[in-house]
Formats: sequence, structure tokens, C-alpha cells
Amino acid sequence: MSKKLLEHITSPTDLRKLSLLELPQLAKELRDFIIDIVSVKEGHLGASLGVIELTIALHYVFDTPNDLLVWDVGHQAYGHKILTERRTKFDTNRQLGGISGFPKRSESVYDTFGVGHSSTSISAALGMAIASQLKGEKKHHIAVIGDASIASGMAFEGLNHAGVTDANLLVILNDNAIGIDPSVGALKHYLTSVKEGKNPKQNNMIKSLNFDYSGPIDGHDLPLLIQELERLKKVNGPKFLHIITTKGKGLQQAEEDQVKYHAPGKFDAATGEIQKKSEEDLPLKFQDVFGLTLVELAKNNPKIIGITPAMPSGSSMKFMMETFPERAFDVGIAEQHAVTLAAGMATQGMVVFCNIYSTFMQRAYDQIIHDVALQNLPVIFCLDRAGLVGEDGATHHGVFDLAYMRCIPNMIIYAPKDEVELQNIMFTASLGLKHPIAIRYPRGRGFLKDFRFQISDFKFEKIEIGKAKKLKKGKKIAVLSTGTIAHNVTTALAELDNPNEIAHYHFGFVKPLDEKKLHKICDKFLTVITVEDGVTTGGFGSAILEFAAKNDYVNEVFLCGIPDYFIEHGTIDELQQFCNIDVDGLKSLFSSLLEEE
Amino acid sequence: MSKKLLEHITSPTDLRKLSLLELPQLAKELRDFIIDIVSVKEGHLGASLGVIELTIALHYVFDTPNDLLVWDVGHQAYGHKILTERRTKFDTNRQLGGISGFPKRSESVYDTFGVGHSSTSISAALGMAIASQLKGEKKHHIAVIGDASIASGMAFEGLNHAGVTDANLLVILNDNAIGIDPSVGALKHYLTSVKEGKNPKQNNMIKSLNFDYSGPIDGHDLPLLIQELERLKKVNGPKFLHIITTKGKGLQQAEEDQVKYHAPGKFDAATGEIQKKSEEDLPLKFQDVFGLTLVELAKNNPKIIGITPAMPSGSSMKFMMETFPERAFDVGIAEQHAVTLAAGMATQGMVVFCNIYSTFMQRAYDQIIHDVALQNLPVIFCLDRAGLVGEDGATHHGVFDLAYMRCIPNMIIYAPKDEVELQNIMFTASLGLKHPIAIRYPRGRGFLKDFRFQISDFKFEKIEIGKAKKLKKGKKIAVLSTGTIAHNVTTALAELDNPNEIAHYHFGFVKPLDEKKLHKICDKFLTVITVEDGVTTGGFGSAILEFAAKNDYVNEVFLCGIPDYFIEHGTIDELQQFCNIDVDGLKSLFSSLLEEE
Repeated sequence: MSKKLLEHITSPTDLRKLSLLELPQLAKELRDFIIDIVSVKEGHLGASLGVIELTIALHYVFDTPNDLLVWDVGHQAYGHKILTERRTKFDTNRQLGGISGFPKRSESVYDTFGVGHSSTSISAALGMAIASQLKGEKKHHIAVIGDASIASGMAFEGLNHAGVTDANLLVILNDNAIGIDPSVGALKHYLTSVKEGKNPKQNNMIKSLNFDYSGPIDGHDLPLLIQELERLKKVNGPKFLHIITTKGKGLQQAEEDQVKYHAPGKFDAATGEIQKKSEEDLPLKFQDVFGLTLVELAKNNPKIIGITPAMPSGSSMKFMMETFPERAFDVGIAEQHAVTLAAGMATQGMVVFCNIYSTFMQRAYDQIIHDVALQNLPVIFCLDRAGLVGEDGATHHGVFDLAYMRCIPNMIIYAPKDEVELQNIMFTASLGLKHPIAIRYPRGRGFLKDFRFQISDFKFEKIEIGKAKKLKKGKKIAVLSTGTIAHNVTTALAELDNPNEIAHYHFGFVKPLDEKKLHKICDKFLTVITVEDGVTTGGFGSAILEFAAKNDYVNEVFLCGIPDYFIEHGTIDELQQFCNIDVDGLKSLFSSLLEEE
Repeated sequence: MSKKLLEHITSPTDLRKLSLLELPQLAKELRDFIIDIVSVKEGHLGASLGVIELTIALHYVFDTPNDLLVWDVGHQAYGHKILTERRTKFDTNRQLGGISGFPKRSESVYDTFGVGHSSTSISAALGMAIASQLKGEKKHHIAVIGDASIASGMAFEGLNHAGVTDANLLVILNDNAIGIDPSVGALKHYLTSVKEGKNPKQNNMIKSLNFDYSGPIDGHDLPLLIQELERLKKVNGPKFLHIITTKGKGLQQAEEDQVKYHAPGKFDAATGEIQKKSEEDLPLKFQDVFGLTLVELAKNNPKIIGITPAMPSGSSMKFMMETFPERAFDVGIAEQHAVTLAAGMATQGMVVFCNIYSTFMQRAYDQIIHDVALQNLPVIFCLDRAGLVGEDGATHHGVFDLAYMRCIPNMIIYAPKDEVELQNIMFTASLGLKHPIAIRYPRGRGFLKDFRFQISDFKFEKIEIGKAKKLKKGKKIAVLSTGTIAHNVTTALAELDNPNEIAHYHFGFVKPLDEKKLHKICDKFLTVITVEDGVTTGGFGSAILEFAAKNDYVNEVFLCGIPDYFIEHGTIDELQQFCNIDVDGLKSLFSSLLEEE
């Protein structure tokens, strides 16, 4: 079948000129288009394949962009992007300067609300609907949300409010029983029972929240979807459509292994086969170091528990879940609950590793302060994907954690520089600390190729809390780095013409600071450079300034890190370069400061 | 009836020695005891009166502290405190050095989890229950949560998880249809329908989440409560008891005006009458300046909207709700939803004042970053009760906001020094800013007695964004303060022997900083003192250090503010003194630095 329809569609206006009978053909073309490009350029695959029919139906029935459509999370919005003026740019997806992998207001008028984190769509669309009502504008407002996202507390708050308004809001539950990993929780079981017809519609839970509930219907049946959406257009007030879809629909392997094909990397567009990379020569991912180390520690201590909010694969908590299922908990997209659950366990003497991506930890900020730090409970937070995360972009960079954690009393903050330090700080924390600790480490691979072969033969060493390390001697200038960015500093220093001039210290502990070493440093070096993979506003460098001010030092201090604006998407290397914390950027800075000396 | 029973009860062990027939008498004594003391010492009244029977029944039936009891929020825990070894200390409630107004782990083994913010109890108790299970300990775990708190997202997350466990968890819904203000939302309507028998039990919403649901029953019927709790003790897995109570039960006025008697201040224990204070000579509360100003602005701009998460009275959003009900929204205890709702409205050009207490804004941190700041939507956040809040103590101080807000790109942060500035920044923001703004101001009264008479005759003036103000000239030292703490600085300076030596600048804007003025200050004054009513770790002083470092200044900078540990309860004056930001503390610092000069 030749691709005829899609290439003539620039915007939904073109789409609406098609006949109903042509739409299944368009769906096929749109699927193929996404598969073709994502197979080469990488990105999120399964979610978008699952909502092809819904995407077409929504833009066909509703008057977008006048009617306002909000995609929750946005992993599923590739079809939407392609049908809304971005088909010819879609091959730049997630690349530096290219389109974002998520809906983004500055990118298109069709992207009514920027997303990336889950469960915001109902609140946002309700806000729009109330605004339209107040302005006397007749518009439709649609939130499309998955069954994993709707189980998050924030979505419930949105439903709870919407149910007492007469706002023109349509919530579409895209129920495929999976987020990035399979959905969990009592609501998921309930939805399953609804799908299986075990629950009478008249007492539906959604109806209890005062929504006009309809469904469940087959989300891949285009005529049915269109008919139902046309009907709902005429229903006033908050309404709810429950549709059943299959994640990865249309690509057999993606349907069969939905976790792997969420974002499969490069694959064969024809066969679906994922390109295998030889990993033997590569260092382990920090995620796997975390996951494997946790299992090792848990073998020797029955009080060790692991918690992940919906990221068992991404965080490698899956190893703990496989080995000690009774002590490993995937609580769904529920960061707030995850943290306070951990606090509750810690009151009973359990040693809890609560692993949350740095960017998602923002969701549990109050719980960290109020439930953990204030009570000084020794919960062990593992902040995965700290620092720049690359292609996921502005919504996902874990660059605020040092700043927002540092102001919390009682909190220990540690950023390992490599795999060994991650392993050892986990060991140290598992022995029992007097305070909560936040351990931050980046997405992706470490640095130590041989470490892979040591992982089953751990030689744990205890790390002294609050102790910094001298990595390299120097005469004139001191560089203080925290976390894995040490690697860039080390490389940059090695490439200098006069490497002996600059000393390098690794401050694994951003809090408490190694004050003894800092006194020595401030006494010896007039110029101090701080380097961090996080915002400099309030971050590690700021802590050094506070120390210096408190102790009447007048050293010249240069802060290197993420500047005070949101960083977009690109490779980590590109983004580090942009922030001048790549090897070359640091080298230039070091050279220029040496010249000034 | 003479008070015989209560005075012989030190702990629940004593309580359990009473016969069932004696318990109603104890309930009466406990109520009278609370009324007698709170009428004189002040505190939260209504919530505790409402759960007297539940409190007695729980400690009678369960083996506390071996069985673990978690009170949500904790306003209702006075009876609990009195029955658990704190009767003789209860008159020190909320005072410096006295017992806390909330359950607190460090205070008593019966306080299993520190609370203050809402909706944490289910997660915490579930964590405890899972821990007990893993340790092989047979314990009961009970979370007592109100109908306002259970509607918050976090509580839903806890229920959603608990429903798929077999943890020995009992959730008791204390349904009195009111939090601090009357409860709102679709769930509240649903619960009302359940109470009225309109919903068949077999399809109950809570049952949908896989809980063993029972109730609703009369929460003031002691024999029934005890019978039901005894029955539930024998039920395995997660279970849910719905009880109906009356807030303020036993004091007629408190039952009739539940909002006022939540925390009525001093009142006549016999008649219930609240002591009237003459307010005519006092400055307005900042809350009322906010509320009244919002109404004035809204009169002239139909796009202005007000949002409060469950604090219409406390924030004085009630004025807007009374005057423009269609443009004022109490969304319940749902800070996350409140912020993203505001963001959704802002995308449609509405001018949204989202008023959230500083301490509760921690609950919506991700939404501020991801939904507002990243999209640069000009939402106007009003952070009420910023700084030290006094008697509510460690859980409620709004001292982290400057630090956690400052690291967010695009955010404007402003702290007015008085009522006029609050009014004018609200006016300025309402005209439309290019960025979101956070306006922080404290709990309680302002400084301007005459302002009260100007409030109906506003003369709004626009404030230039990023501009600092010189309040006082000086020769040797510059004091930079932000917010209302300026008042302490001004007073301290006026009391110095040599006031001409010290200049005083008011930095209303913590972000963006007035860099032009800062250059002048750093050029002129070798010594700079920063004063803020917030944590110095990452706060305003830290921003000044970052500026100085960036611009190669080597001034001596002293940071005054809240130190890096949690501050307990006491009067605001006492706590300021403790932090050395009271008038005397500042005066001493100024004097000693002048001597050094």
C-alpha cells in the first residue's frame, strides 16, 4: 500500500478533509512513519503506537487547536506531533535544536501544556476549562491520561475538584495496564475488573466522583472512537471516557515485550528486532551498580528494603524485586507515598533504600522535609538520573536536587564520583546512619570497565561521613568537584600544559562539608573553582561560599555548573558543553585562570 | 460530677482498667479538661473535642504503644496526649519548652509518627505495618484521618498501595465534613451520599480499592465504637472504618461555629464565649491585606482568579470567595492540583493568585518547577505564613521557601516589608509580569496602624521589578534585609549609639537581585550583613554571596537568619530571639561589628 495520505497532512485541517473510510489507512501510515523514524533515531515507541487511533480520532472530531488537548506525560504524543505541523521535523526528535520528545508550548500551538512528569493533565485541562467558561468561550478541553498516571495522587486531586464543577472537561483514560513498567495498585485491579465486566457501571468509582462515565471501549476501533467522541462533545460538564488500548500496537515485538519497547533504542523497522550492542567491554550502568549492590547488601541484612515509584526497570530495583520480592516495593507513580512509606518503615528500624529519579523527587519535597528530615529518620534516598539527563530534556534534568536538598536540616548529601563510591556509600548507609542521606548519581554508564567483573565479589569499604578526598596535588588553584563530573575535571587537568599548578578535591559530601579540608584549601589556595552537575544557584558552590563567608575567607571562588535557566534536550555531552562543564570548557577556564595568576 | 477518673489515668494501662460503663464519664472529664486548659492557654479545640470517644476507644481496645497509632495532621490529638503520660504537662501545650501541639516522636513513645501536614498517616502506618510483617511481629497499625485529609492525593496513593497488600492496617475515616474550613470536592459529596444511605455498600468506592469497608457508624457512641474496633482487630489485611463525628462536640458554640472554634483563642470555659479583642487600634493582618486587596484588584480586572487549597479563612481568600464566588476556588487540601490548575488557567490568559502557606508549598514543588516556571507562566504565588510561624512549630515554619524557590529559573521572588508593599506588589503582578512570582509574607499583623483606614481607598503604585530600596544611609556597614524582618533591623539601628555608621537596604526582590545597587554597596562597604526570616543555607544571604563571588568582590559578608536545624515551637518573638534575628540580637551584632571596624 503506498503512503499517500500522511504526506498530504500538515495539520488537523487536512486530516478533517479525509473521509471516515480513509482513516484506518492513515492510522497504518502514521504507525509506519513512527516506526521508521524511531527505529533509526531512537525515542519512545510503544506509547505512541498505542494511541494512533485515539490521536486521529481526537484531531478529527475536535477543533484543535481551538479545542484544547492535553496529553499526560507525553510519551504517547508522537502521532500528535506528526499530525500537527511537525511531520517534516519529526526526524529531529529529541536532538539538540530539534523538536522535544514531549509536548511543549513554545514548540506548537497544538501543544497546549508542556508535560513530561505524569498526572498533570487533569488539573491543567480543568484550569483551561474554567478559564474558557469565565471568558464565555465555548471550547472543548480534553485530558488524555494513562492508567498508571491516573493512580498518582495529583490526578485524584484533579478529578476530585473537577467533579464539583460544571467545566467542559473530557478525561480520557487510556487503559493499557502499563506505564513504563506494568501498572500496580488497587485502582489498577479495579480497572481490570471493570474491563472484565465484573463491576456494574451504575456504581462505578469514577461516577462516584461525579463524572459522566462511559466505556470501556476498544481504543483501536476508529469508527467507535469517533462515534463516542462525537456523542461526548454534546455532553455538558465533566465526563470520562475509558478506552482500552494495547501499548506497542501494530509492532508484534512491541506488543509482546512492552517494557523493552517503551524506548527500545535502535531497531529493525521491518522485523522489530532490537540492535544488540556488545556490552561486555563497557562499564556497568550506575543503575545496575545500584540494583546489584542492593541485592548483595540485602542478602546479609533482612532489614533492608527497596522502594521504587514505578521505575523498577529504569532504576534497576527489578533485581531486588526478583531476588527479595517481599522486601521490594513498586508503589506506582506515587513519590509522595513512597517517601512517607519509607519513613514509616524507618520508624520500625528497617533500612530503607528509596530510589527516586532526581527530577521526580521534586514531587516528594514536603515528605522529605516533614516526614523524614524533621524526624531525623535514616531513610536512604537514591536519587537516580541526577544532573543532566540528555535527550529527555528540560522536564527531566535532575539539576535542582543539590540546591533543594541542601537547605534541609539533618540531611546528608553524597554524590559518588564512580561506581566504587556508589557501592561503598550504599554499604555505609546500610550499616545505619544517624541521619537521612541522599545519594545522587547520573543516568548511564560509569567509568570503570573492570568493575563489571567485581560486582559479584564485592569488597565493601566504609566511607567516613563528611570526608572529602584529594584526587590530585597542585600549587596555585584548587578545583573542588562533587559527583561524577570529577571525571571531566580529571581529564581536563590531565590535558593542561601545566597540570601541576592545579589541585583537585572530590567533595562526595555536599553536606556535611569537610570543613577541616576546606580550611586547609582556603588557607593554601587564593583561587578556588567549584564544579557541579547541578544549578549553581544555591548548590554545591554556594555551600562553599557560605563556608568561606562564615570563616572570613576572602578567596576568589568560581562557580561552575548549570546556569540559572532551563536547559533543553540534546546529548549529555552537548549539554555539558553548553554549560561549560565539559572537558574542553573546564580546560579553557583552568587555563585562563592560570594565566591570571 | 466530680472529676475522679481522669486524674488517675497516667497512661492507657490505667485507662484499660476502667469498666466499659465508666468510659462515658471519662469522656466527659476529658472534654472538660481540654476545654478548661485550651480556653486559657489557647490552641486547637474543635478537632480534639470531636474525637474524644474515638481516642478513648482506640487506647482501650488496642495495646498502645505496642500497637501503632498514627493521627493524621494531629490537631485532634489533645485527648491522645492527655491519656498518654502528658496530662500534667498539657498546660504547656505549644509553649516554648512545652509539649508540641502535634504528635511528635521525640516527645512520647505513643506518638508513633510526627505530623502537622495532612494526609501522611496512611502511608506512614502502612510502612509500619509492612515492617511488622517482615519482622514477624503481630501488631495493629491504625491511621486516623479526616475527610478533608483523605481527599488529598497523597492519601489516595497510600490507599491505592495498601489495597494490594495484606498488611495489618486499619484506616479510620473521621468524617465530620470539615477540615479547618468545610470540606470540598467530589469525594466529600460521595461520602455525604454514603452517610445518607444513598450508596449501596457493596459497591463502595473504598471497597473498590480492596479495603474491607465498614460503617458509617456514630463516632460518639462509645460502646458501638469499642464493639466495632474489637471486631476489626480480628479482621486480617487492610480495613477501613467510616465514623461520623461532630467537630467541637460537647461545646455548643464550637459545634455551631466549627470554623471559628477550630482554634478560637481564649474563651470562657463555662459559656464558650470567645474573648473579644479590640482590633481597631491594631494594624491589619497581612492575610486581610492580601484578601481585601485581591477583591479590589478583581473589581477592575475580570481575568483575576483566586485559588486556595483548603485555607479560605486562614488566608483570607474568603473575601474573594464572598465577592466573586465564580472566580475564587477552594480546591481542598490539594496543593499540587492548585498549582497546576493555576498554570492551566494562566495558559488562557487568566491572572491567577494562588495562595498557599509557605510550608504547604513544599507539597507542590514539582508543579512550580515543571508546570509553571519551565513554561514561564505568570502565575502569582502568594506564600502566606512565610518565616517563623510561632506556636505551630517545626512542622509549620515557612523558612525554606527562599532557598527552594531561588534555584528555580524564571521565578521572581519578592518579600514585602510592610502592608503597602504587599498591596503594591499584588497590583504590579496583576498588571501582567513576564514570569511567575512568589510573594512571601508572614503570619499575623503588619506595622501600619493607619493602613486599616486606607484599605478601601487604595492608591496602588507599581513596583519596579528587581529594584532594592535604601531605607537608611550609613558610612561603614551595610545591612541588607528582605521582607518584614526589615522592621527588626530598623528598630535595632535606631537604638544604636552610633546609628549613622550603618546603612540599611531593603531587598524586596530576592530574585532578580538589584545588581546595580549591589555593585554600589559592595564598592562602598567592606562589611555587609544580610538578614532574612528564612534558612541561611541557600537563602537570600547565599544569593548575595553568589553575586559577590561572580563579580570578584571580597567583602566580608555576615549571614543572619534561621540556622541549619529545625526550630521548635514558641512565640515568634521567642524564636526570633533564639535565631538572633530579634531586635536585641541584631543590635548586639551591629555593635560588635562596628567595634571591629
